[in-house]
Amino acid sequence: MYRRELLGASDKVSYISSVVDDAEIFREVLITMMEHVNELERARVINPDIASTLRKALREILAEGYEPSKLTNFEDVHEYVESRLMEKVGPAGGWVGIGRSRNDHVTTAIRLRLRRYVLNLAQEALNLRETLLNKAAQSNSQLIIGSTHRQPAQVTTLGHYMLYLDDLTRDFLNLLMSTYSMVNKSPLGSGPLAGTMVNLDRAREAQELGFDGIVTNTIYATGSRFFIITTASLIVDYLVEVGRFINNLEMWLMPQLNYVKADPKHLATSSIMPHKRNPATLEVFRARVGEAVGHLMAMYSILRPVEAGYQLDLQELTRHLWAVMRIALEGLTMLRDFINSLDVNDHRVIEDLGKYVITAAEYAEVTSMREGRPFREVYNEVARAIREGARVGLEPQSVVLKPVRGSSNPRDVVTEVSLRINEVRELRGRVDEELGRIDDAENRVLSGG
Amino acid sequence: MYRRELLGASDKVSYISSVVDDAEIFREVLITMMEHVNELERARVINPDIASTLRKALREILAEGYEPSKLTNFEDVHEYVESRLMEKVGPAGGWVGIGRSRNDHVTTAIRLRLRRYVLNLAQEALNLRETLLNKAAQSNSQLIIGSTHRQPAQVTTLGHYMLYLDDLTRDFLNLLMSTYSMVNKSPLGSGPLAGTMVNLDRAREAQELGFDGIVTNTIYATGSRFFIITTASLIVDYLVEVGRFINNLEMWLMPQLNYVKADPKHLATSSIMPHKRNPATLEVFRARVGEAVGHLMAMYSILRPVEAGYQLDLQELTRHLWAVMRIALEGLTMLRDFINSLDVNDHRVIEDLGKYVITAAEYAEVTSMREGRPFREVYNEVARAIREGARVGLEPQSVVLKPVRGSSNPRDVVTEVSLRINEVRELRGRVDEELGRIDDAENRVLSGG
Amino acid sequence: MYRRELLGASDKVSYISSVVDDAEIFREVLITMMEHVNELERARVINPDIASTLRKALREILAEGYEPSKLTNFEDVHEYVESRLMEKVGPAGGWVGIGRSRNDHVTTAIRLRLRRYVLNLAQEALNLRETLLNKAAQSNSQLIIGSTHRQPAQVTTLGHYMLYLDDLTRDFLNLLMSTYSMVNKSPLGSGPLAGTMVNLDRAREAQELGFDGIVTNTIYATGSRFFIITTASLIVDYLVEVGRFINNLEMWLMPQLNYVKADPKHLATSSIMPHKRNPATLEVFRARVGEAVGHLMAMYSILRPVEAGYQLDLQELTRHLWAVMRIALEGLTMLRDFINSLDVNDHRVIEDLGKYVITAAEYAEVTSMREGRPFREVYNEVARAIREGARVGLEPQSVVLKPVRGSSNPRDVVTEVSLRINEVRELRGRVDEELGRIDDAENRVLSGG
Amino acid sequence: MYRRELLGASDKVSYISSVVDDAEIFREVLITMMEHVNELERARVINPDIASTLRKALREILAEGYEPSKLTNFEDVHEYVESRLMEKVGPAGGWVGIGRSRNDHVTTAIRLRLRRYVLNLAQEALNLRETLLNKAAQSNSQLIIGSTHRQPAQVTTLGHYMLYLDDLTRDFLNLLMSTYSMVNKSPLGSGPLAGTMVNLDRAREAQELGFDGIVTNTIYATGSRFFIITTASLIVDYLVEVGRFINNLEMWLMPQLNYVKADPKHLATSSIMPHKRNPATLEVFRARVGEAVGHLMAMYSILRPVEAGYQLDLQELTRHLWAVMRIALEGLTMLRDFINSLDVNDHRVIEDLGKYVITAAEYAEVTSMREGRPFREVYNEVARAIREGARVGLEPQSVVLKPVRGSSNPRDVVTEVSLRINEVRELRGRVDEELGRIDDAENRVLSGG
Repeated sequence: MYRRELLGASDKVSYISSVVDDAEIFREVLITMMEHVNELERARVINPDIASTLRKALREILAEGYEPSKLTNFEDVHEYVESRLMEKVGPAGGWVGIGRSRNDHVTTAIRLRLRRYVLNLAQEALNLRETLLNKAAQSNSQLIIGSTHRQPAQVTTLGHYMLYLDDLTRDFLNLLMSTYSMVNKSPLGSGPLAGTMVNLDRAREAQELGFDGIVTNTIYATGSRFFIITTASLIVDYLVEVGRFINNLEMWLMPQLNYVKADPKHLATSSIMPHKRNPATLEVFRARVGEAVGHLMAMYSILRPVEAGYQLDLQELTRHLWAVMRIALEGLTMLRDFINSLDVNDHRVIEDLGKYVITAAEYAEVTSMREGRPFREVYNEVARAIREGARVGLEPQSVVLKPVRGSSNPRDVVTEVSLRINEVRELRGRVDEELGRIDDAENRVLSGG
Repeated sequence: MYRRELLGASDKVSYISSVVDDAEIFREVLITMMEHVNELERARVINPDIASTLRKALREILAEGYEPSKLTNFEDVHEYVESRLMEKVGPAGGWVGIGRSRNDHVTTAIRLRLRRYVLNLAQEALNLRETLLNKAAQSNSQLIIGSTHRQPAQVTTLGHYMLYLDDLTRDFLNLLMSTYSMVNKSPLGSGPLAGTMVNLDRAREAQELGFDGIVTNTIYATGSRFFIITTASLIVDYLVEVGRFINNLEMWLMPQLNYVKADPKHLATSSIMPHKRNPATLEVFRARVGEAVGHLMAMYSILRPVEAGYQLDLQELTRHLWAVMRIALEGLTMLRDFINSLDVNDHRVIEDLGKYVITAAEYAEVTSMREGRPFREVYNEVARAIREGARVGLEPQSVVLKPVRGSSNPRDVVTEVSLRINEVRELRGRVDEELGRIDDAENRVLSGG
Repeated sequence: MYRRELLGASDKVSYISSVVDDAEIFREVLITMMEHVNELERARVINPDIASTLRKALREILAEGYEPSKLTNFEDVHEYVESRLMEKVGPAGGWVGIGRSRNDHVTTAIRLRLRRYVLNLAQEALNLRETLLNKAAQSNSQLIIGSTHRQPAQVTTLGHYMLYLDDLTRDFLNLLMSTYSMVNKSPLGSGPLAGTMVNLDRAREAQELGFDGIVTNTIYATGSRFFIITTASLIVDYLVEVGRFINNLEMWLMPQLNYVKADPKHLATSSIMPHKRNPATLEVFRARVGEAVGHLMAMYSILRPVEAGYQLDLQELTRHLWAVMRIALEGLTMLRDFINSLDVNDHRVIEDLGKYVITAAEYAEVTSMREGRPFREVYNEVARAIREGARVGLEPQSVVLKPVRGSSNPRDVVTEVSLRINEVRELRGRVDEELGRIDDAENRVLSGG
Repeated sequence: MYRRELLGASDKVSYISSVVDDAEIFREVLITMMEHVNELERARVINPDIASTLRKALREILAEGYEPSKLTNFEDVHEYVESRLMEKVGPAGGWVGIGRSRNDHVTTAIRLRLRRYVLNLAQEALNLRETLLNKAAQSNSQLIIGSTHRQPAQVTTLGHYMLYLDDLTRDFLNLLMSTYSMVNKSPLGSGPLAGTMVNLDRAREAQELGFDGIVTNTIYATGSRFFIITTASLIVDYLVEVGRFINNLEMWLMPQLNYVKADPKHLATSSIMPHKRNPATLEVFRARVGEAVGHLMAMYSILRPVEAGYQLDLQELTRHLWAVMRIALEGLTMLRDFINSLDVNDHRVIEDLGKYVITAAEYAEVTSMREGRPFREVYNEVARAIREGARVGLEPQSVVLKPVRGSSNPRDVVTEVSLRINEVRELRGRVDEELGRIDDAENRVLSGG
């Protein structure tokens, strides 16, 4: 639209267009625009009649929906919206161009969309925690062979492993909520880089949009993508660590171990080998985590040559954010379902506990304390005995009753679960409330007269 | 299909399905399947009538086209094709399952698709070289200020820069053709991992498909993705280096330098700042190079936890290959168009050559040789003079006439261009011939009775 | 030591040894071991005499220093310390092996070291903020040409750019302190994976080491590296965004722009081109940011195939964390020094403000408001005028006086600076106090009888 | 040296200095410099006496050795060498500065060093192939359970797996030799960017240094790092694929599988769990592969913001190349040693072959062919039988005798081995000869009068 007036029609528009990616923020672009109209009215740049006309038209545009495949002549959703607005209301549509730039509007729309994604992800992580805690309570006494170096290391319980994932998810949620505080700030009113000549009240705009304050500096507000890469990198960090537990699940599902059972709906088979039971959903999740790492690296690579301030490179960055959010949301949903139906094959675990030396460390510790002999001395004796084929160890059921906080001890697991159920409930309340709050704010703007 | 019989319908199919990505290889999957039918016939596993029936049905399936959005109940294109085949010909369709696995069929289809992409990319790189060589010939005397450290370094010509990109593209093409030799080998007949019980003649299959021999070891043939990551990484290497020249173009397009003119169709403007002329296509290309780096990292990340042999993780890898191929093809096409219309703003270059000290190195060299004084001594004098504000240097037009091979010397550039035009022509002939050869082979298989 | 007794001497120790990397945590390993001895004494596993003997010997080992090049026969610092301990005190040294594993001890040592690095980095980031705020106050009226798309976009001030970097650093510090809360928790007492049989009071250990509580679950405590990758990725995020401003500085230092002056100590020259003034420190910093991205990718790649629980792969991860910390600390120190001596070449900025159309957006906004005509209409007129060569715009000095919060307006900049100086002071107080607190705790452990 | 004269001593030198990294190319920098002196003499820029004096002094400098820790005041090895030269021969040392730049000299030295590394790596890959082929011959009938999706898939042999790795290594070597052809070209004589005023015969220089021709364009020769990233990315590709087989080895070494035995020198144990046998060398190798991916990402990240032509960022890139080379060389050496002592635990494999349904695919194929019934029909019957607990299958020893080329068939394996032993021998001959050739060339230059 701007370029066609100036530079002539171009056959390169489709190469630079973001209309397909912009489907993700169509609604948010319109919320942003409506709030901009509100503020232009309050700043007396446009009169109430024009403001009403513009708002009505913008609502219609939202209602018409967004079909990117028909919009390939547009550079982006912003150009499309302004163009459609002019079709609807004539030259008065040209008022929306004042006091704004695509630079501040797109980043506002991204933050609106992202804050919702972050809260939805928090909900999904809380769902996962709930599942983990319930499973931990159920399986607090179900033995499993814990491994280090892919080798049987110590006997523990499935409940203990469930709380391991809960600890990870808890740390993740804490950091995610810190990140949310940074994301949920308003860049609106920052113009292209250095601000605009219109006396916009940025704090008022922020408040109406349900933001928790403004991103102060306008260069930072329009050009930085720190809020995107910190959100994405935190999620990737979490996914990578979750992916490590997927490795455990796949290991436990090996027929030779067969320590756990998965619901058949998570398995696929071979077109030629009818005996195969492939952990298909886990494999896909694990691969998608790898993909998420790639998206983060794409973002870094895109940012490297770009100066402060908006450049079109930034447009190409955003889709990687949405991809990471989708990978995380779909993945956690799948994983929750998987864990929900997870069960231990007790007889297989018991069988292998009888077959391999696994409790030698505990045996050596107990012997050392009982006999008052330095641990290393006992350890060396035990090591020699094992080399000579002796089966050294303690009763697995007794070994899990460790005295240390955070261990496999079933009582400790049960206590921890009950504390955390409350913690999860409390945080869920806060997240739901925040979602309600932003829903209200956005709906108010969308329905405003 | 296999899983539904065994494991019940699953609501997780859409999570693990590759039907959307498989659009890229639909045709190649059918070529592979038809060749498999041919070989089953020759190996007397199926009789000629059944073979004909199957081939006819497969041709019909190809003709029906592929709409992934309607196939979300299928794990992948292979399951869809076999299922559709059974619908068409009844139980006899079940013959295609013998002597093959999705593991060897999908990698065959990927190699068929990739070899074409590689040759198309070679053509596009040759097109770029032709453009570069023509532009180099035209601009062999058009001065430009060459930079190191983003600082004016030496005077040179646009032609010299064009040959720089040509040298890069030439090295790339050499390695790309080596990679092609590895890609264009047949994994067909390898079964799921260790081969099948059917006496397939793998060499005959390879030859009919236009492959240059077989990927021998069946574990390697079915499970390795070395041919994918080497192709992708080579292309990423090239794109990253080309991206550096994009940085040059963007620098030269800065109004403060304004050393070159770009066709307006490669520029965009601002919705609020009417004076802006943003190098939109270059920015998008540069960002896509960053994205390509991300795709490669995704592939590495996906492969890291996977053992030898097929795992579903590998399915998730392939889309990143296609993404890299598209980024490269679209990017080179755009770049060629950009360079084709590139022009030097001679007066701006001349102006700045008069304004900044740029030829001091050559001055010092010439002085040192003429006066027989060690270079460092002269260099230090010149450095002091410059610090004191002296304008030291030689005539730019004379300075480009360097005696060294590969330099900015216009005669050297012109000679080089004429040698390379022939080289490009010769390689283009080979690439076109190879494309014709694989077209013929694939069409023969597709039309076989 | 353990392996030599059991598995025979190996010529592969140097390949798997971490003794060189462990130099970074030598002191922290000894602190950890001393606290372990304290707790063994309190848990009555060892008597006070043995405890005193062990503490004394450990203090001596610390005092002897650490020369990795002489320790290549050891797997790691832990093996060395235990071995040296046995040399010093005989078999009683073998008591330290009870109730611990290298798995919990190494991660305790890493957290001890990392918490200090994080606080030091916070201090360095606060130093940078102080420099930025002072420079912002000084340069609140020094015009600079702000760019988007590497093209002159709007006139603004150096002060405005300084606050941009301050906003970024402020967000970074907020997240860094959240990360610190996660890092500064104690994994000590978790044993190899599932806890130990010794009745260690993990909370008491945590408190004595100055940790803010324990990492509860022992599988998470020993095997997870989430605290490492979140710290590293946050820092990489920040560095990548800072790196974008380095691109600005390098752009402004181009002789053709020459908008800013750098202290000569940040510049290097060429061995052959005496006129060159290369921004050497900025280039190295920018490249090191690229390296930091690589270290993060290395960490992700290392973690991908690893199950929950310790594996030797994790040992190889840690050095990348230290590398990121050093890159960040050295880089921020350099950048602060650079900015401290940064100055605007006012005459060059003024000259270019007169030469290029830069204030057309503001002109169009003001005209639109004054004449009550829709912005797009005015914009199109202005665009046409510019195309025809008109110099359209407003007085730069007036244009920076924007009414919008967070803009280039000097009064706004000055107000913001004074608010933030206090914020920085307050946060610095908290960081210094926390450093004092952990110093005290560590020294108490080290000097304990 | 250059900067101290111009810009004053700087406290920032250590930040930008590459003297530590330059240890890797000290010898090659001197070879480059000596050849440069030879060419200056031939070009009659310096007389034979001066040339002799310079050569003698350069030889002395080489003999004195290189201690980076004492050179932190120098920007790089080039500055040190020129400075030391001036100390030795006085102002005449200043002659070496003519007709060269650090830009062309450093990339010449890097190529000299890299070509040797590439050939050494080729030798090490050939050593690995030899080990693999010998092991394949030995173990052509030793059954192993081949897996896909980490699940038992088909019975095969260790010999078949050995040839899988051999196929991979063979493809790698082919591409590595193509890469070598690109690496082994001379950039010498290109000056800083656009060439020099001295009439250097670049082809003659290239020939004397044992290069196979010149890198023609001087911008490409001095500023491009395509030869580095293609070499590094190819090696990373190979390591990532080899890393997948490490996953197999670690899986087979799990006590629950215990399919293979490793030499104890490749194992480590726990400081607390005396029963552990951790595959330490494999874990470290696998992690180092992850690190290598990070180095490649670092290189891409470093290059992204850099224009064509030298920038100091490039200096920071080189160390990642050497790191990749070392990871590859040390890793392959370790792996060869590991495989050399690898042995199958036949009884465990036989036991599990009797325990799990593994040959059902072959059974279904054979049944389908024998009974003339469509495969899918038989497959479904077999699948149902398995679900109902039937043990369906064929004799494993017969199943490996597959008729397909490249399969587990011992005769096929043996035939393949003998063909490849010759191939390896032939390639080794070429590599050794090439190494001899470059040794001769370099020694001639070093000893030249």
